[in-house]
Amino acid sequence: MYAMDQEVIKTIRLLSADAVEKANSGHPGLPMGAAPMAYVLWKDFLKGSATDPHWADRDRFVLSAGHGSALLYSLLHLFGYEVTLEDLKKFRQIGSLTPGHPEFDVTPGVETTTGPLGQGFGNAVGMAVAEMRLAEEFNTQDFNLVDHYTYVLAGDGDLMEGVASEAASLAGHLRLGKLIVLYDDNGITIDGGTEITFTEDVLKRFDAYGWHVLRVGDGNDLKAIHDAIREAKLDTSRPSLISVKTTIGYGSPNKAGKSAAHGAPLGAEELAMTKRHMEADPDEFFNVPEEVLAYMNDIIDRREIDRFMWEEKVESYIQNYPEKAAQWKQWFDYELMHDSFDAASFYRLFDKADATRSVGGEVMNALVRLAPNLMGGSADLNSSTKTYLKGKGDFGRMNRGGANINFGVREHAMGAILNGMALHGGLRVFGSTFLVFADYMKPSIRLSAIMGVPVVYVFTHDSIAVGEDGPTHQPIEHLLLLRSIPNLFVYRPADGIETAASWIEILKRVEGPSALILTRQTLGSLGERDPQVDRGAYVILSEEGEKPELILMATGSEVELAVKAALKLRTLGKDPRVVSMPCVEQFLEQSPAYIETVLPKAVEKRVTIEMGRTLGWERFAGLGGLTIGIDRFGESGPGEAVMAHFGFTPDKVADRILAYLAK
Amino acid sequence: MYAMDQEVIKTIRLLSADAVEKANSGHPGLPMGAAPMAYVLWKDFLKGSATDPHWADRDRFVLSAGHGSALLYSLLHLFGYEVTLEDLKKFRQIGSLTPGHPEFDVTPGVETTTGPLGQGFGNAVGMAVAEMRLAEEFNTQDFNLVDHYTYVLAGDGDLMEGVASEAASLAGHLRLGKLIVLYDDNGITIDGGTEITFTEDVLKRFDAYGWHVLRVGDGNDLKAIHDAIREAKLDTSRPSLISVKTTIGYGSPNKAGKSAAHGAPLGAEELAMTKRHMEADPDEFFNVPEEVLAYMNDIIDRREIDRFMWEEKVESYIQNYPEKAAQWKQWFDYELMHDSFDAASFYRLFDKADATRSVGGEVMNALVRLAPNLMGGSADLNSSTKTYLKGKGDFGRMNRGGANINFGVREHAMGAILNGMALHGGLRVFGSTFLVFADYMKPSIRLSAIMGVPVVYVFTHDSIAVGEDGPTHQPIEHLLLLRSIPNLFVYRPADGIETAASWIEILKRVEGPSALILTRQTLGSLGERDPQVDRGAYVILSEEGEKPELILMATGSEVELAVKAALKLRTLGKDPRVVSMPCVEQFLEQSPAYIETVLPKAVEKRVTIEMGRTLGWERFAGLGGLTIGIDRFGESGPGEAVMAHFGFTPDKVADRILAYLAK
Repeated sequence: MYAMDQEVIKTIRLLSADAVEKANSGHPGLPMGAAPMAYVLWKDFLKGSATDPHWADRDRFVLSAGHGSALLYSLLHLFGYEVTLEDLKKFRQIGSLTPGHPEFDVTPGVETTTGPLGQGFGNAVGMAVAEMRLAEEFNTQDFNLVDHYTYVLAGDGDLMEGVASEAASLAGHLRLGKLIVLYDDNGITIDGGTEITFTEDVLKRFDAYGWHVLRVGDGNDLKAIHDAIREAKLDTSRPSLISVKTTIGYGSPNKAGKSAAHGAPLGAEELAMTKRHMEADPDEFFNVPEEVLAYMNDIIDRREIDRFMWEEKVESYIQNYPEKAAQWKQWFDYELMHDSFDAASFYRLFDKADATRSVGGEVMNALVRLAPNLMGGSADLNSSTKTYLKGKGDFGRMNRGGANINFGVREHAMGAILNGMALHGGLRVFGSTFLVFADYMKPSIRLSAIMGVPVVYVFTHDSIAVGEDGPTHQPIEHLLLLRSIPNLFVYRPADGIETAASWIEILKRVEGPSALILTRQTLGSLGERDPQVDRGAYVILSEEGEKPELILMATGSEVELAVKAALKLRTLGKDPRVVSMPCVEQFLEQSPAYIETVLPKAVEKRVTIEMGRTLGWERFAGLGGLTIGIDRFGESGPGEAVMAHFGFTPDKVADRILAYLAK
Repeated sequence: MYAMDQEVIKTIRLLSADAVEKANSGHPGLPMGAAPMAYVLWKDFLKGSATDPHWADRDRFVLSAGHGSALLYSLLHLFGYEVTLEDLKKFRQIGSLTPGHPEFDVTPGVETTTGPLGQGFGNAVGMAVAEMRLAEEFNTQDFNLVDHYTYVLAGDGDLMEGVASEAASLAGHLRLGKLIVLYDDNGITIDGGTEITFTEDVLKRFDAYGWHVLRVGDGNDLKAIHDAIREAKLDTSRPSLISVKTTIGYGSPNKAGKSAAHGAPLGAEELAMTKRHMEADPDEFFNVPEEVLAYMNDIIDRREIDRFMWEEKVESYIQNYPEKAAQWKQWFDYELMHDSFDAASFYRLFDKADATRSVGGEVMNALVRLAPNLMGGSADLNSSTKTYLKGKGDFGRMNRGGANINFGVREHAMGAILNGMALHGGLRVFGSTFLVFADYMKPSIRLSAIMGVPVVYVFTHDSIAVGEDGPTHQPIEHLLLLRSIPNLFVYRPADGIETAASWIEILKRVEGPSALILTRQTLGSLGERDPQVDRGAYVILSEEGEKPELILMATGSEVELAVKAALKLRTLGKDPRVVSMPCVEQFLEQSPAYIETVLPKAVEKRVTIEMGRTLGWERFAGLGGLTIGIDRFGESGPGEAVMAHFGFTPDKVADRILAYLAK
C-alpha cells in the first residue's frame, strides 16, 4: 500500500509538472511540494463523490493557494472527477476545464475560485459556519444529514494576507471545530525565502486566535500527515492549523527549495532530470501508470460508499421528517416561499418617510417569512446598518442556530466568509457595513461577481449626507466602484417602497451578487406607486406636455431632490420629466423599446443627479448633458449643511439646470 | 503634581464630552477612557513643538482610533497647538479645524488622517520605517539629527482589521524598535462587548509577531502607564504593544463601560451627571481651569526645549556636514536634482520595444540620480513588477540604509505603510503589485488621495494580456476604480518613451498620489517624439486631410493597437486621427483650447479603445460614440489568444470601427 501511495504521489507531482510545462506557464512548486499532504487528505479523509461533485454533505476542500491549481486538477483527475488527461493537457488554455487558477462552476469538484491570496481561507471559514448552522437546522437525533469538514490548503502568502488573519480570528472566536487548515510551510515566496519578510511564529499566532495547532516536520511523512489530520478532526471544539514543512518543487534536482520553482515551468531539461531523479521515464508525459489507475479505481469506488449511505439516509429522513425535507429543498434551491405573497400590499407597508436603512431593516425582518434561510450580519455596525434579524439569535459558539453573525470590525473577512457560506449552499447570505467601507471588501465582492454567487451586500450611509463623520466616511466614488464590477447589481432605492422592491429583486437574483445602497438620513415618501425596480428605471414624474423638454435622472436620495427641483422648474415654465433609476444594471438589460420610452433619444437635454462621482453618468447624459455630482472629497459637518455646501438643495439644483438650459 | 495631572485629565475628558455634546455628534467614549494614557504619553514622553508642529525630529503620534478625535483636539489645545476653545466649539462643523475625524493638513499637530480603522496603525509602521532609514542616512557619529519615536493609540477595531495585522507582522519582522502602540483595551465595540466577536489573546498574537508586549491593568494608573511606556522605549530591538485596560466613557455614571458611550453624545442630563460625578460644575462648558492653564504652560514651554536644542544642533551640522545638510533639504523638499537633466535625451534612452514594466524598472533605476530619496518595494512581486532599485540594498533588521522594502504578500499594509512614510517626510515612496490587486489596497490609496501625499503606486500586469493566470488576475474594472478616486493621477503609458515621461510627471507631482499602470507583455516602440504626458493626451497619429473623419482614443498597450487599426482604416479610404491619452486627469486640467485641438468638437465619430470597462469612456465618446472595451471578466489562456478572443487585434478593431462608421 505504502509503495502504491508513493507511486500516486509521484504521479501527481509529474502530472502537475507536465501540465505546467506543456502550458509553458504556471506554478509547479506548490503541487510538487504539497502533493503528499493533499493526497493523504483526499485518500484517507476527504468525503466526496466523483459522480456527484455537488453532493450536499461532502467535505469541502479549498485550495486557498490557488496558484497550485495543477495539483488540484491532478487530484481531481486521479480521484475520478470529470477532468481528463486531455483536460490536463489544455491547462491554462481558453475554454478549458483547467484554467490558470481554480474557478468555481468551471471545473467539476472545484469548490471556490481562488488565486487572490487569503480569500480561499476566508471562504472556508464561511463554509464551516454554514455547515454548523445547517447541521443545527436539519439534523435530528436520529439523522445526521449535515456532518462534514472543511479543509484548506494554504500557503505563506495566504497567511500573510490580512483577510485571512481576520477570518482566522473570527474562526477561533466562533470555535469552528470542523475547519482544518493544512499550511504548506515551504519557506519560499516569489521574491525569496520567507526570512526576508515573514518571520513571525505562525503557530503561536493561531494559538492566540484560539486554534488547535499542530506541526508535521516532514511533508513527505505520510503517516505523520495522517496522524495530524486525525488529531485535528478529533478536536471539534477548535479549528485546527497543521503546519507541514515541505520543499517547494520537491523532486526537481536544481530548483527544489528555491523561488525558481514557484511560478515558472521547470523547463524541458530540468523536467527530464526531475523524472530521472524520481525514477520515471523522461520521455513520458502525462503518464498515469496502470497500477496507479487500478489502485485509484478502488479508492474512487470506496469514496462513493459514503454518498450512497447518505442518500439512503435521506430517503428515510423524507419519510420521517417530511416538513424538514421540504424545507431542505427550499433552502438549497433558493426557493422563495411566495405563495401567500402579494407584492403591492407588501410594498405598501413600507410607504413612509424614513431613512432607507431603517426601512431596509424592517423589510429584511419581514422577508424572513419569504426567505427563512436568510443569514448574515454586520462588521460591527448593526446598530447603524439595521440589518439585525430580530428574534433569530446570534450565531456563536453556544448557539449554532443563530442567523445573525457578529463579524467584528472585519469587513474583508466578512466578504470572504459570505462567499464561502453562499458557495456551501443552503443559505441566503448578507453582510452590512457603511458604503465607504466597501473599499475594504472589494477583492471579495469581485470574487462574488466572478463566481456568480448570490451574496447580498447592504451598504448604508451612502453619501455626503453621512455628515459629521467627514470625508473618510463619506462615499464619493463608491457607487461607481460597485457599478464597475461586472455581474454585480447595484440597487439604490429612493424611498421605502423602492427599498422593499429592491429587496424582492435581490432575493430573486441567484446568478450573482447584489449591493443594496441605503441612506443614513430620513427621506420622504415618493407616494404609492408601482416601483418598477425590476425594470431598473422608470418615469416617476411625467412631463405635462407631449414630450419632455428635459429629463432628470437620479437615484436614491437624489430622486426626491430631482422631483422637488423639477416641480420648481415647472413653476418657471419648464417641462421636465424625472426618472428614478434604482438599478442601472437592470435598466441596461431592458429592451431598447423600453429604454426609449424612459429616455427618448429625441430629448437632448439630459441631467443626471447623484451625490457621487459624475464619471460614468455621461453614459446617459451624453456629451451635451449636465452631470450633477461630487468630484472631490467631502466635508465634516451636519448632513444638511454638507449637502447644501455641495449644492444639493432643490433651489441650487434647479438653478444649475436653468443655467444649463440657457446655454 | 499628581493632583494637577488628575485635573488636566479631568479637563481633557470634559472638553471632549462637551465638544461631542455641542456638536450633537461624535464619540465621547474613547476620549474619556483613554485620556490618562494619552496625557501621560504627551506630557512625559512625546517630543514635539506647539510652535512648530512640523519640526522634523518630533515624535509622531497617531490616533489610529480616529473616532476619538475629540481627545486629540483637546490634547492639542491643552498642549498649546493652534486649536482654540473656539475651534473645539466648532467640532464637526464645515470648515472648522476640528472635523469629525482627524484630518492631516487641516489641524496643526495632526499627523495623519484616520477614521477608517487599522490605517493609522499601518501609517505608524511607515513612519517608524522612515525614521530608521533617515537616521541611517543623515545621522553621524556626533549628530543625531533623526532620533524620534512613533506612538500609536489604537482600539479594538484597529486590531481586528487585517491591514493592522499585516503591518504588525511586518513591523515585528523588521524589528521597528521605536514604534510603540498603546492599545485602548476597553472591551467594547459598537455592537456590544468584545466577547461577542473578539476573544483572541491579542498580546500573545503580537508576541508571535515578534513584538515586545506589556500590560497595564488599570488605565487610570498614571505611574503604571508611565512605567510601561518607559520600558517600551528601552527595548529598541522590538516594537512594543502596551495593552491598557480602560473603561469606555469613564466618568459617565450610566454609560461608562457600555456601547452607549461609544458613538453618541452623552446627552445633556448624563453630561451634567458626569460633571457632578467628577466634581465639576455641570453648568460650565469648555472649561479649562486657571491652574490647569498655568500648569500646562510650563509643560508647553518645557516641550520647546528639545526643539531649540535640535535647531542648534542643526546649525553645527550645517557647518560640519554641508553636503549632508544640502541633501537633507533636497530630500525633505522633494527637490529633483535636475540641473543636469535633459528630458528629450532621457526619454530617448527608453525608446525601444519592451514590456512597459521592464522599461519602468529601468527608468526608476535611472531616476535614482534625480530622486535619490526614492524608497519603496513590492508586495512579493518584485520579480514581476521590476521595481527593485539595484544596488540600493534591502531595508531590514540588519540594514537600515536599504531603499528596497520586501513588504511580503501584504498589499494593504504596503499602502498604509507608504502613506506613513510619505507623511513622515524626507522620502519619495513607491509600492508595486499587480493592477488587479489594487483592490486589496483601495482604502489606503483613497487615504493617499484625501491627504494629498505623493505616494507612487506602480501597478503592472494591467489587462487581460496577463493571459494564463485568468480572470482573478486580469484587471477589468481597475483603471476605472483608480480614475474614480479624486486627486489620484493615473498614468498608463503606451511605450517606453511615455513610461519615462510618466515617471517624470509623477516625480513632479507632490500634491497627491499617482498610479503608474504598466504592461506585462512587450509593446512596440511608437517612435521618437515628444511624449506629451504633461498634457495628458496628444495626437500621436494625425489625419491626412484637413480635418479627421473620426478620432480614435486609446491608452497604454491599446495605443499601438489603435495606430495599427487606423493605418488599416486608411487603406480603406478612411481618415482617422489617433490620440494617446496617458493621463486622463492631466488632460482634463488642460485649457479648453488645448482640449479642442486634440478632440475637436466638430468631429462626431469618436472611438475609445481600452482593454477594460467601457463605463466612463462615454465622457469622451459621447452617446453617439463607440467604446471598445471589456465588460465581463476575463479568460485564462495565453495573452495573445485572450486578446484575440476579446477582439483586441488590429483587424477586429478596424472591423468594429467600420461597422460603426457604416451605421
